[in-house]
Amino acid sequence: MDFKAVKGTRDFYPDQMRVRNWIAEAWRRASLRNGFEEYDSPIFEYLDLFTAKSGQEIAGQLFGFTDRGGRRLAIRPEITPSLARMVNARINSLPRPIKWFSLPRLCRAENPQRGRLREFFQWNVDVIGADSILADAECIYVAVDALGELGLSADDVCVRIGSRPLTVAALRAAGVPAELTGPALAVLDKRPRLSDEDFGKLAADAGLTEGQIAAVGRFQEASSLGELRSHFHDCDEVKADLDDLAELFATLEAMGAGDYCALDLRVVRGLAYYTGVVYEVFDRSQALRAVAGGGRYDNLLEVLGGPKVGATGFGMGDVVLGILLAEKGKLPDLSPRIEYFVIEATEELRPKVLEVVGALRRAGLSADFNYRPQSIGKQLKAANRRGAARAVIVRADGVSIKDLASGAQRDRALEEFLRAPAGAEHMQ
Amino acid sequence: MDFKAVKGTRDFYPDQMRVRNWIAEAWRRASLRNGFEEYDSPIFEYLDLFTAKSGQEIAGQLFGFTDRGGRRLAIRPEITPSLARMVNARINSLPRPIKWFSLPRLCRAENPQRGRLREFFQWNVDVIGADSILADAECIYVAVDALGELGLSADDVCVRIGSRPLTVAALRAAGVPAELTGPALAVLDKRPRLSDEDFGKLAADAGLTEGQIAAVGRFQEASSLGELRSHFHDCDEVKADLDDLAELFATLEAMGAGDYCALDLRVVRGLAYYTGVVYEVFDRSQALRAVAGGGRYDNLLEVLGGPKVGATGFGMGDVVLGILLAEKGKLPDLSPRIEYFVIEATEELRPKVLEVVGALRRAGLSADFNYRPQSIGKQLKAANRRGAARAVIVRADGVSIKDLASGAQRDRALEEFLRAPAGAEHMQ
Repeated sequence: MDFKAVKGTRDFYPDQMRVRNWIAEAWRRASLRNGFEEYDSPIFEYLDLFTAKSGQEIAGQLFGFTDRGGRRLAIRPEITPSLARMVNARINSLPRPIKWFSLPRLCRAENPQRGRLREFFQWNVDVIGADSILADAECIYVAVDALGELGLSADDVCVRIGSRPLTVAALRAAGVPAELTGPALAVLDKRPRLSDEDFGKLAADAGLTEGQIAAVGRFQEASSLGELRSHFHDCDEVKADLDDLAELFATLEAMGAGDYCALDLRVVRGLAYYTGVVYEVFDRSQALRAVAGGGRYDNLLEVLGGPKVGATGFGMGDVVLGILLAEKGKLPDLSPRIEYFVIEATEELRPKVLEVVGALRRAGLSADFNYRPQSIGKQLKAANRRGAARAVIVRADGVSIKDLASGAQRDRALEEFLRAPAGAEHMQ
Repeated sequence: MDFKAVKGTRDFYPDQMRVRNWIAEAWRRASLRNGFEEYDSPIFEYLDLFTAKSGQEIAGQLFGFTDRGGRRLAIRPEITPSLARMVNARINSLPRPIKWFSLPRLCRAENPQRGRLREFFQWNVDVIGADSILADAECIYVAVDALGELGLSADDVCVRIGSRPLTVAALRAAGVPAELTGPALAVLDKRPRLSDEDFGKLAADAGLTEGQIAAVGRFQEASSLGELRSHFHDCDEVKADLDDLAELFATLEAMGAGDYCALDLRVVRGLAYYTGVVYEVFDRSQALRAVAGGGRYDNLLEVLGGPKVGATGFGMGDVVLGILLAEKGKLPDLSPRIEYFVIEATEELRPKVLEVVGALRRAGLSADFNYRPQSIGKQLKAANRRGAARAVIVRADGVSIKDLASGAQRDRALEEFLRAPAGAEHMQ
């Protein structure tokens, strides 16, 4: 018998687990200091919740199953539907804006590829109940805040910001009929990953003429708000959306995140449900898939049976981010460390070793020891292997505290050491 | 449309999430200071892994599904099989003893009841590669250490410790034939939850005679190691197991966890795979299900295709523990707090507010603000609602820092405040 993990899932041995926790804790700290509160949903939901948001075709991308009562369930492929369900259930009692984050484990029945696994973790940050562009700005800011804490500068990553309503307006201005807007957006979303020739073919398949493709291309090339205003000839219809974008960039600049952000109208986001600004975080070289993506989705709560209420947010997965951090050499030394390794001078002193170990741990200090009797030399080697800062050598007449980095050693009475073990930190 | 969470699963709104995190962080801190390293496995595995450990009948208690290739998968109902799989895969390179812990999310297709849900979290602590009873003692110690940190004293909870080999020896001494040992253990495991009459019936169904039931009952009533030795008339066959138990209690006493622990031979543990000491943690009143359970399982790695290697550990779920902590009033005030709420004196100062908010957050301080322009009074109310320690009122000519508990207020220049915002903490 030879058991293996399922393809596309990961075993987190302690080395990998420390990296996962290091990323998750940076996400959590950034969320909390930005005023977001953590929530979570069950790992599985009724399948209907996911198909109501994304259509029946999503079912093929989920791990679905049936409970004993014959109801169709699925492991969550994203947490946004659950978030909308939870908020809808308490929409009248939750103070707004609802600023929530989560660190869910998600599963998708995909073919595993570089940067895309069947099981992953995704930081989700959302503001619900606020129509203000400030809510979009805050979501982008918290993403930048966390990326900065993880060691990624504005030279490493970029938040590329587009606009769903302006893209729709550009399609309309180019003469694309309303019923082709959805297919056109789906094709535009794929554009950055396609050759011009392949994109042209797909766009033609979606019903766009060459003239329309060229017109939308000019819109997408606008690299400043000024160029964008010119493209639309200061048309009233798009004024509010242009003003929103301008306020978004001004806000991010005022908050100190401007360096990380750029206008990029090629960012469209594939999902139908976006209604406002949209954005994706990429490494500057764009060699990897998107690190994060999000935007405004003002209709989702209503689609899931609630009221119409403003909502905006993003998801940042751990897989591409982990690859990027490793490639950029940003992962710190996370080897395990303990404060004390307790050593017995002779085997008869084992009860005293146990007393010391128990007392240190109860005092909140990390401590370990050998199960098997060994020479002091071998126990000191074990202490070094375990990453101990200090060894406590328990002798019949007291203890010796040895700093394992400097080699400095000091003798103390056992009772004195147990009363104030942390005092040993100042031994040098 | 009215979407709900699946029965037996939980939505973690921020209030519940803070309790879950508070418990998980106590588990994690206790694990780390006791020298354990964290690992995790995928949420689903090939079904075979679970049936290889627990038999085909486990399949009915799992959420199983099939991937596109037709392979049978299941959401993990426990993490021990995955742990054994992971350790077996690296058995020759992992330094022993392997002291690992995990905080997995687990799912079981059960009928939800008080203390038993379909989805829950379970702290798992295991030592692999050590035959010494010290490994069992360490697992029990870390459980006690965490329970103490959560505010549960030896008056609240008790680790009830039994012995699988001594129970098997008692059955044999009572004349129970070897082939009835398994069914007899299963019945004995249920005994504490049954009336004498119901237990008698079940035991008779399992093939035990009245004399055998009485003899095993006398064994289970032994409340000290001395009584236990008498029961076995100092028989050589059980000497090693009796010595193990004696050393276990002496170790727990030396480490300072003796008060929490008691001999209780009624603790048998239902699962076939235990091979040594077994234990369960109960509230002292025994009004609730077990808070935790575990023991030694020296054969599991071999059953799952690895070598024969000593292993011992326990699982502690969050559901019963959460009920107990709530009933005992041990849950602390976990309401969300932020350090600063930034207020605009007039709407034109919004860019300065954004600058202050961004600077505070980048300095690692938690800060929030209102999206909508409001009077200073309303913004101060919002600051109090958000649990802010201080308000920063941004004026045209500087900032006023207001301590919201004392009402004390101090004016500072904006630049000075941005250089050293934390200095405001010493304003009184």
